[in-house]
Parts: sequence; structure tokens; C-alpha cells
Amino acid sequence: MKQTPQILSVEDLNTSDAKWVGLKRIHYQDEDGKARTWEAAARKTRGSGGVDAVAILTLLQAEGQKTCTIIIEQYRPPLGKVCIEFPAGLIDGDETAEAAAIRELREETGYEAKEVVDSSPVMWCDPGMTTANMKVVTLRVPVEDTKTMPKQHLDPGEHIVRRIVEVDALYDVLRDYEEKGFTVDARLANFAMGFALTKTLKL
Amino acid sequence: MKQTPQILSVEDLNTSDAKWVGLKRIHYQDEDGKARTWEAAARKTRGSGGVDAVAILTLLQAEGQKTCTIIIEQYRPPLGKVCIEFPAGLIDGDETAEAAAIRELREETGYEAKEVVDSSPVMWCDPGMTTANMKVVTLRVPVEDTKTMPKQHLDPGEHIVRRIVEVDALYDVLRDYEEKGFTVDARLANFAMGFALTKTLKL
Repeated sequence: MKQTPQILSVEDLNTSDAKWVGLKRIHYQDEDGKARTWEAAARKTRGSGGVDAVAILTLLQAEGQKTCTIIIEQYRPPLGKVCIEFPAGLIDGDETAEAAAIRELREETGYEAKEVVDSSPVMWCDPGMTTANMKVVTLRVPVEDTKTMPKQHLDPGEHIVRRIVEVDALYDVLRDYEEKGFTVDARLANFAMGFALTKTLKL
Repeated sequence: MKQTPQILSVEDLNTSDAKWVGLKRIHYQDEDGKARTWEAAARKTRGSGGVDAVAILTLLQAEGQKTCTIIIEQYRPPLGKVCIEFPAGLIDGDETAEAAAIRELREETGYEAKEVVDSSPVMWCDPGMTTANMKVVTLRVPVEDTKTMPKQHLDPGEHIVRRIVEVDALYDVLRDYEEKGFTVDARLANFAMGFALTKTLKL
């Protein structure tokens, strides 16, 4: 039976003992020629393409229905809570961002993409704190009905809950999640804010 | 005379020697009751409000002109490049996100906000890798003309270039920046993607 995950303990970790993430001290010369330092975290897994991860904006389209997208609920140990995010994953070795997006969408949600609509510029996740970067790939998935879902292809031990949401309603849905004690990913939330703004903004 | 900043060297850093960022090993029990570990980076500066940072979506509005927003160009040592971002900053001690947003907008851009239009849910910047979180505060700034800018209030050694952009054109502007060798922040880019999508998507 599934249970609610829980944090047992947290300890300080040194860079040499970490497998996935490390800390760096950067020595640099600023705009005035002055020597300065900065601290940053970096993934240890970046492949030859130079991009760490991909997130997927799915456009789920059925004849006569509103365009929907897929968001996922996933327990995130750094937060100790379930986070609402775009489907996403790390890019493997020399895989392209687009191939990783199609693969991750299939694994996490079961949907097979029929078209890459857009591949975003490389984006930097938190440039004051980490070197992590990503792309957002927009995938079109034509379906008979947005209300039925295919079978997921999860790895053993992976627990991902899918939810289909009308793109139009996304920001309100994220606010609801937060009120219920879930956490919300910043990339997804900013996307939803941008979309929602067009409804209220006189341009 | 201003020069282009440059990285001099990068070294591994241990958590006990870092002032701003640390690494953690998290021991947790997953959905199946299995004991697992996860590695994460965390800011050491979080205040009593529990939110690390704030980003500002400015709505710059002049009679008869399109709504604009303000983005900034800032050198980011973790990337070794200038990054295009929303104005943003860390929240001081027990400051609210809204007060931090008004303060940071004034410091980084010189604009005085007249209204808090929206304060977003707490968002998690990169929940697979860090504990970092933030809010986006939307501030309305009425102006005579979107083409003239007030004086910034930067700290010594702070170098921030402002740019006024029509909200409508933001995603195209970010693509141009990337082609010119700048980097782009993921929160800003996702906001721009969300806004741009309404132009192409039949809902």
C-alpha cells in the first residue's frame, strides 16, 4: 500500500562525497576589474549537449474540446512535499532535448507526441545560485478525448501522478494546489502567470 | 571604464567553508516505505518568512501606449555570462515578499510601484536539485512615457542594465538575446512562453 513519504534526517554533505550535486567557489573579475568570489551549486551529471534537463509543455488536443496540458504530482525530498510540475527529466548523455522530451513524456505520462511545436532557448534555472539549465520543449499530442489517459511507463520506485488541466485554468489550479498544501514549481507557475495575464491585461 | 567580467578560476567548495549555499544529504522513506537518500543544495540565508527571494513582474503603463515590463541584464558568475531576468532579490530578514519587491524594483530600476497587483503562490526554483523558493510579485507602475527611465539606486559594485520591453514582444526579445550570446532566466522565459502561447493557441 502507498504511504506518504517522509524525511527521516538531513545532514551536511561535502562536495567530494556527493554523486549528483557539488558546490563551487568561483573566482572572477567584475565590471570594475575587481577580484570577487561567488558560491554556486552545480549538477555533476551534465552530458555532452551542455543542457542538464528538459521540461515538457504538452498541448493535448481533441476535436471540439479546449486545449489541455499535463502536469504531474511528484514527491520532492528537497522540499519534503509533493510538487506540481511540468513532466521533466535529465537529458541522457548525448541525447537531444527534443528526444529527451518525447522519451520523458512517454515514461511519465504514457502519451506519444506527434509533433515538436517549439524548442525553447536554453534557460538557466536559478542563475544567482546554481549552474543548472534546461529547455522547455512544446509537444503536440492529438487525442480522441482529453479525459482518458494511457498507461504510464514508470521505473520501479517511481511515483508520478498525472493530471490533465485546461491551459486556460492553469494558474487557478496551481493556487488551489498551494492552498491544499502542495508545492508548485517556479517554471510551471511562471508559465501559468504569463498565460493568465493575457486575460486581465489590456495590451 | 567598465570591462567584461571574466572567470579567473573555479574550485570545489565544502559546505562548512561556504557562506551562502550548502549541500545536504536527505534521508527519507518513499511511497513504498523504502529508505532512500537525495542530494540537494540549500541557501544559508533564508529569513523568518520562509521564502528566499522575490522576482518582480512590472506592469509599466502609460496612456495610449502598450503595456511594458522591465527586464534586467546582469553578469552571473555561476553562468560566466550576462543573464536576462526579471528584477529580483533576496528577501531581508522578516521583510514581506511585497515589501522586498517594491524595494528591489526601486533599487535595481528606479521605478516606484503604485500598486501590488498580484502576489503569487510560493514557487520552488528547481525542486529536484535545491530547496530554493521565491514569489513573483506583480507591481503596477503608471508612467508618463514608457520610453524614459528614472535614476537607479544601485549599491557600489552592482552593475545592472535595465530594458523596457512590450510584454507582447517578450519571448521574441529573449530569443534575440540568446542568439547574441546572452543567457536567459527560466522563470522569465516560462512567463514569456505562457504569454506568447495565447497568440498561437486556439483555446
